[in-house]
Amino acid sequence: MLTIEEAQNVIADELKKLQIPKEPWNLYEPVRYILRNGGKRIRPALVLLACDLFGQDYRKALYPAIGIEVFHNFTLLHDDLMDNSIVRRNSPTVHIKWDANTAILSGDAMSILANSLISKVDPVALVPVNRLFNKTALEVCEGQMLDMEYSTRQDVTISQYINMIRLKTSVLIAASLGLGALIAGSGEEESEVIYNFGLNLGIAFQLKDDLLDSFGEQEVFGKKIGNDILTNKRTFLLIKAFEKAGEEDRAELKKYFPGEEINPEKKIQGVLQIFDKLGIRKETENEIASYYNKALGFLKVLKIDEHGKKGLEDFANTLINREK
Amino acid sequence: MLTIEEAQNVIADELKKLQIPKEPWNLYEPVRYILRNGGKRIRPALVLLACDLFGQDYRKALYPAIGIEVFHNFTLLHDDLMDNSIVRRNSPTVHIKWDANTAILSGDAMSILANSLISKVDPVALVPVNRLFNKTALEVCEGQMLDMEYSTRQDVTISQYINMIRLKTSVLIAASLGLGALIAGSGEEESEVIYNFGLNLGIAFQLKDDLLDSFGEQEVFGKKIGNDILTNKRTFLLIKAFEKAGEEDRAELKKYFPGEEINPEKKIQGVLQIFDKLGIRKETENEIASYYNKALGFLKVLKIDEHGKKGLEDFANTLINREK
Repeated sequence: MLTIEEAQNVIADELKKLQIPKEPWNLYEPVRYILRNGGKRIRPALVLLACDLFGQDYRKALYPAIGIEVFHNFTLLHDDLMDNSIVRRNSPTVHIKWDANTAILSGDAMSILANSLISKVDPVALVPVNRLFNKTALEVCEGQMLDMEYSTRQDVTISQYINMIRLKTSVLIAASLGLGALIAGSGEEESEVIYNFGLNLGIAFQLKDDLLDSFGEQEVFGKKIGNDILTNKRTFLLIKAFEKAGEEDRAELKKYFPGEEINPEKKIQGVLQIFDKLGIRKETENEIASYYNKALGFLKVLKIDEHGKKGLEDFANTLINREK
Repeated sequence: MLTIEEAQNVIADELKKLQIPKEPWNLYEPVRYILRNGGKRIRPALVLLACDLFGQDYRKALYPAIGIEVFHNFTLLHDDLMDNSIVRRNSPTVHIKWDANTAILSGDAMSILANSLISKVDPVALVPVNRLFNKTALEVCEGQMLDMEYSTRQDVTISQYINMIRLKTSVLIAASLGLGALIAGSGEEESEVIYNFGLNLGIAFQLKDDLLDSFGEQEVFGKKIGNDILTNKRTFLLIKAFEKAGEEDRAELKKYFPGEEINPEKKIQGVLQIFDKLGIRKETENEIASYYNKALGFLKVLKIDEHGKKGLEDFANTLINREK
């Protein structure tokens, strides 16, 4: 059986071999730039893994897997422009290194390139592969729009937040697995089961992200703890805190957001104290466990051999138990 | 036989019926806005026409035809943002009515919607249809990149300019015809012939655009004559003028570009006088005739009945002889 690490290595090699047109240089060089700039290549690795799990040579899924990675990087490129993020993976983002117009147009080209690659499958699988990919791609746009809208709103509920991260993050992880299954000829029903495993795992994964940002171990985590608090991000933790807070704690929390006049360290410590008082860490861990268990429920009924299920479960475990 | 006007009416009706998701409103309302904002619907009409000409019910091509129109409007939406155009078809552009981020993301969604629609064909035709569409879509991005690059350069040659308008404008007209043929089951060879008819016609069409902007009849043309000159656009006419000008005329031309200190009317009249002196109108008419004749050459060898060829020729004639 193919392991996730092996699949990641295959993807890294294939990406190096990927032929991207040379000219116009200003259109295609940013595409090469963002693709060689790293990333864990988890999504394309999942495409290969699912194809392998359903008993087919993973090489049947190579082009669509690369297509998923190109699509994912297209969304990062445009999101960085929309959010005006200046650094991604320790390098300047495309709109900073070039300009906004280049970022728009090179992103557009990546979206089309992704489509070309995803269409390079056995024609037998093309109809459902196209359908699942296009549905997912549109949902990712919906998730980004909701994320932008919610960033200026105070009244976002937990269920709205979960729906937003489902669209923005989880559906692409889910579709990576679902596409690999379809390419292997699993049939739509089994593809849907592994999709739902990925969907719930993806939500758990994003919630873990939220959790680590507030409660990670500084040395292991690497990045600065409390960045979400500092940038007023409405994560699961903050929404939950507002939901659970009594009158007094709520007033205290409100003071911190946006709270631009407050010393950054004091803001982080102040909010973390309220989180502690309200048991937000435990709440988040419970929510993660709940989505993780939902994912395992889908894994259980999946029609692949037990060895394969064990592999997926181990992978799910590393995602959920990671400390950075 | 379906006429182009009938095809345009069919498209207008279908667009009204097109189901676009309601939520998130800020993602999909700009899509509805730009699609209901008009346009001649020539490209999707050509998809239907080609399908009909190759002996199939044009309704087989309805979804891909709508997909081509959605894709075309996606390129207009992002181009308007990149060029910072504030009005399109007498209405504010999307990034003006909403904002830049909405324009980026709604455009991205349109590109994906276009793909979904184009994939809704008889599975037998799906592989070549996807291949031609994706190739074309990427070329349109290349054309826009070249157009942006050339707008700040003084040394663009006629052949570079023709290549740019081929990519930016003609390939989509060509592909509309080619896709209609493929959907009708013409086979790739015949699809390529009608594609090449469209490609050359498209170049002639764009050159006619350039010509009318300088030499149209003010009353018939509607828009202001000389707008390209005023905005320093490097059209076929201007590049040709620089190419043909002797030392004296070249120095005079250079004075006008960018020539922001010159009175607009004087600038237009001054440049038009040089155009007249150098015979630029005739040069452009000859170039249009040359591409028009190339187009007719492809039409001649096309394996459809004579009645159908006559219809395409009439359509080509109206495009080339239009006065606005």
